[in-house]
Amino acid sequence: MYQQTLPIILASKSPRRQELLKSMNLDFEVVLKELDESYPVGLLPAEIAVHIAEKKAAAFLELSFAHIVITADTIVAYKNQILGKPSDAKHAKEILETLSGTNHQVYTGVSISYNGKTASFFDVTEVFFNELTAEQIDYYITNCNPFDKAGAYGIQDWIGLIGVEKIIGSYTNVMGLPTEKLYNALLSI
Amino acid sequence: MYQQTLPIILASKSPRRQELLKSMNLDFEVVLKELDESYPVGLLPAEIAVHIAEKKAAAFLELSFAHIVITADTIVAYKNQILGKPSDAKHAKEILETLSGTNHQVYTGVSISYNGKTASFFDVTEVFFNELTAEQIDYYITNCNPFDKAGAYGIQDWIGLIGVEKIIGSYTNVMGLPTEKLYNALLSI
Repeated sequence: MYQQTLPIILASKSPRRQELLKSMNLDFEVVLKELDESYPVGLLPAEIAVHIAEKKAAAFLELSFAHIVITADTIVAYKNQILGKPSDAKHAKEILETLSGTNHQVYTGVSISYNGKTASFFDVTEVFFNELTAEQIDYYITNCNPFDKAGAYGIQDWIGLIGVEKIIGSYTNVMGLPTEKLYNALLSI
Repeated sequence: MYQQTLPIILASKSPRRQELLKSMNLDFEVVLKELDESYPVGLLPAEIAVHIAEKKAAAFLELSFAHIVITADTIVAYKNQILGKPSDAKHAKEILETLSGTNHQVYTGVSISYNGKTASFFDVTEVFFNELTAEQIDYYITNCNPFDKAGAYGIQDWIGLIGVEKIIGSYTNVMGLPTEKLYNALLSI
């Protein structure tokens, strides 16, 4: 059982990640920095998620001598193509039309930094969407503003509830933080 | 897209079901009756879940002429053995020790009654638990009191977050209401 001995810093503004870490009964503080989330060409989806999580971790490394720092990055891949955060409603619609009636992968890379060292891992979940109608997609974009979400949807949102037929893997990974893998990684520090 | 024209009654005291139906943006009212949840011997897990959902539906049938009535029952099966709601902490511990380090099935039967008729369906999700330590099981039972939950756990609770490695199927089905199948069933009324 994980006994928290050091203060944890979650370097993420995602309310879903904050909520999940809270439900894991961990005490933490949110610390944010504006970071460049670019990545080199040629990386696979899992490598991109880990690359960005590690880039975030590097920016917080000095804090890791007195804290455990958790950073994460979630990306959505469809046929190895990365579907990022939508730039506007039109882009969100295009992404959701791509995901409709088929399956895609959600990758979350996580880095844990402690004592100047960083360890990283990722988790992947397969998500199967029903056919979504244009009306459902428009309703969702208008009412839920999914512009801060990779893949233009939150699985816990209306469209996830009515549109996701099944997943294979971790649900919390799709929300942005693979809690089970994170817990086991914390245990091994 | 489902356009609600009739008031919905959710005949369930489960806060998880109420929360999920609310997140589906449906207007509903909760109406409760004390019901006998027994079932005949010899039924398969899916049949038990549907049998109990239909038994609940029968008790609310008179309301179905002016409302859509939704009833549901969730059961947990391990090797075709039904793991019900725990009677006490010792029983909860036995159930969680059974689920630890292996996979089990969660079935939710749902009935929708309208105009004196009832249609039913079920969904099933495979849930894979890590090995849970005695300390984790005790901590969970003491702090989360899972006595109202089939299988002695809530997937959205601490033990689900740290202990569930993956699922195959619908996450909301494990919470007690398969929202995607329910939405499609409402569309076809």
